[in-house]
Amino acid sequence: MENYEEVKWQFKPNKRVNTASQITIRGVLNAIMSALEPSDARPVIPLGHGDPSAFPCFRASPLAEDAIANAVRSAKFNSYSPTVGILPARRAIAEYLSRDLPYKLSPDDVFLTIGCSQAIEVAMTVLARPGANILLPKPGFPYYEAHAAFNNLEMRHFELLADRGWEVDLDEVESLADENTVAIVIINPGNPCGNVCTYEHLKKVAETARRLGIVVIADEAYAHLTFGSNPFVPMATFGSIAPVLTLGSISKRWMVPGWRLGWLVASDPNGYLRKTKIIECITGFLNISSDPATFIQGAIPQILEKTTNEFFDKIINLLRESADICFEKIKEINCLNCPQKPEGSMFVKLNTSLLEGIDNDLDFCLKLAKEESVVVLPGRAVGITDWLRVTFAIDSSSLADGLKRMNTFCKRHAKK
Amino acid sequence: MENYEEVKWQFKPNKRVNTASQITIRGVLNAIMSALEPSDARPVIPLGHGDPSAFPCFRASPLAEDAIANAVRSAKFNSYSPTVGILPARRAIAEYLSRDLPYKLSPDDVFLTIGCSQAIEVAMTVLARPGANILLPKPGFPYYEAHAAFNNLEMRHFELLADRGWEVDLDEVESLADENTVAIVIINPGNPCGNVCTYEHLKKVAETARRLGIVVIADEAYAHLTFGSNPFVPMATFGSIAPVLTLGSISKRWMVPGWRLGWLVASDPNGYLRKTKIIECITGFLNISSDPATFIQGAIPQILEKTTNEFFDKIINLLRESADICFEKIKEINCLNCPQKPEGSMFVKLNTSLLEGIDNDLDFCLKLAKEESVVVLPGRAVGITDWLRVTFAIDSSSLADGLKRMNTFCKRHAKK
Ligand SMILES: Cc1ncc(COP(=O)(O)O)c(C=O)c1O
Ligand SMILES: Cc1ncc(COP(=O)(O)O)c(C=O)c1O
Repeated sequence: MENYEEVKWQFKPNKRVNTASQITIRGVLNAIMSALEPSDARPVIPLGHGDPSAFPCFRASPLAEDAIANAVRSAKFNSYSPTVGILPARRAIAEYLSRDLPYKLSPDDVFLTIGCSQAIEVAMTVLARPGANILLPKPGFPYYEAHAAFNNLEMRHFELLADRGWEVDLDEVESLADENTVAIVIINPGNPCGNVCTYEHLKKVAETARRLGIVVIADEAYAHLTFGSNPFVPMATFGSIAPVLTLGSISKRWMVPGWRLGWLVASDPNGYLRKTKIIECITGFLNISSDPATFIQGAIPQILEKTTNEFFDKIINLLRESADICFEKIKEINCLNCPQKPEGSMFVKLNTSLLEGIDNDLDFCLKLAKEESVVVLPGRAVGITDWLRVTFAIDSSSLADGLKRMNTFCKRHAKK
Repeated sequence: MENYEEVKWQFKPNKRVNTASQITIRGVLNAIMSALEPSDARPVIPLGHGDPSAFPCFRASPLAEDAIANAVRSAKFNSYSPTVGILPARRAIAEYLSRDLPYKLSPDDVFLTIGCSQAIEVAMTVLARPGANILLPKPGFPYYEAHAAFNNLEMRHFELLADRGWEVDLDEVESLADENTVAIVIINPGNPCGNVCTYEHLKKVAETARRLGIVVIADEAYAHLTFGSNPFVPMATFGSIAPVLTLGSISKRWMVPGWRLGWLVASDPNGYLRKTKIIECITGFLNISSDPATFIQGAIPQILEKTTNEFFDKIINLLRESADICFEKIKEINCLNCPQKPEGSMFVKLNTSLLEGIDNDLDFCLKLAKEESVVVLPGRAVGITDWLRVTFAIDSSSLADGLKRMNTFCKRHAKK
């Protein structure tokens, strides 16, 4: 038998995977974490992640934890689930979302997914017919880019306008679209921009989609997590103007991103997604995809129906308080500018011309990590350079400490 | 604004998804379930599924349920998990698998997946470079075909030999392979054939893979669920002959398929999967894929370490008993022939020439469902016609009842 050295192994990695997985928030954050200085005795202040659940003040509701424990102990949910999810969970989600809509969703409109992330994967995959293109926001959430790239779906980016409260540039949308455009993605409440779209603006988005003959993919991962003047309006409100695929999950509102339970919903009272066989294709793809754990599905009715308003209110108040601190303290930092008070996360403009020896947003984040043990996300990870995404869903004393260190850092590097 | 009727919607489903999702066991079973006669007052006997967990006698261990409840109540596992899975779970799996190996796996060799199914998806995807082909067993498990099709990975099928205890036809394997072949899939213990490969045969498979310069993908979803004369030997035993990707999960051995926790393991002491950057590609793909729920990962060390031998022994004894009943009763049915006593599931040859008005395996299953309310899986769902897969992981009185009805059915349709 040959020596190992003599064997010519024939396998090589799939380049399409490597391309698609290149730009991820995880990847950029990992690079910044590697820049942290182990000799710094101070605690690391993580303002770069989108996951507050590790902080005791943002702990999940015990009611939700009980729902899971009860479901698993019942032994009723140990089997494989149907492809689309179990009926009681789909029904509970249909009812939960219908509360805010002018029409009633049916359980058949609801597909259970592994968080909002898998809902993104499903939407990108089923719409990726050869030659098609999709309209994506810039800045945005790079998981869309990853799955568009993986499926050879051409991406066309439209800008969110900082000076108009991060609204969609609808003129640009119309000029980018052509007869091969299949969908537009709207992330509301916004990540990374932290804005909340008005009823009027969302209606205009739907009307534009109708004119163009395309689907609206409405990413509502942050639904109801708003604490400013604009209330959250579900895109599905306008489902009879243009078909909407609503993507959501329990990750953010319930503070349980590790539970991996989300949904993809056809908010389409006129049934156009069914008539064009998109729904059939969704079911087909789910047939060859992974499912959320059955007992987590089994806990969903209880989680959606029993979580108290006290829990939600407490979270919203904590976030509002943190947003206020963050907004005030960032104002005091010369080279940073936040165009509007955040209603979701915080997205701030970095002015490197005021700094000495800091080239760009990534350079800023790497040096900030090294010198001050503070992690923030550079804008390039979400599609635009020289911005920073600061997540403030963290206990307020750590937040204040982190912002103070950022201020020190900026002063130290300020041009004389 | 246009009427809805006047809008020309531009989106169409992705045909690649439709092709890939066409042949699934779920799809065939759904068709057979639709043939059931609602007016039949007798209980439906499901001998077609691969999921015993719904039967009280196959209930999961309360220790495993406790592990989940404790993990979720600890609130330590509510956050997103790392792409590859949390370290304690990877370490526990590395130790669990190393017990049966001549070398020690490291946690870095272990990637957590959403059941063995997602491990299959990962393996098919990362190896699918353009022009590549893969060797798949026939009969087999159609999830491989689905993901090979989805990734444009050419499939070449080699036969499992019924008259040689369902061993791989290694001569055929050598003749099918060429310089674009990247891997061979071995399912052991076998599904659907229910055979268990010997140490010698697996070693020959590894040697063949080495000669061809390809990876062995070892599907061990049914690891340790054996109750015949051949003990289970992990393919990874021969990882130093050719690199092995071991795929497994807690679904079958722990009777919790709905919990969706599995693994993909690089059983490759010579590090060839790392040197050829396959490992990097796996990590990349996991970066843009869904993760198992974090608290289920958190429960894994306890589940793997604490489950008692009594639990495993009880399950094995139940299965052995059922296999015996099944084997004896099938012998009494003229048109059915089981080439060997099953050590896993039961795969039986259907002789339609002895039957009147039954065209083939699918026809047999549809009419059996309609007339006798018994569900079995036609061979075509796993790649070969005129066989039947009978799963006997069901309580023994239902099993006896189901086999009696099958006998009645066959007698009624026997040629005079
Ligand atoms: C805009 C947006 N969409 C989707 C997701 C995915 O959320 P999950 O998969 O946890 O539901 C996130 C997570 O950060 C997000 O920010
Ligand atoms: C051969 C084989 N591989 C993999 C699987 C998938 O198992 P799971 O995803 O539940 O771990 C199955 C399930 O029936 C199987 O039979």
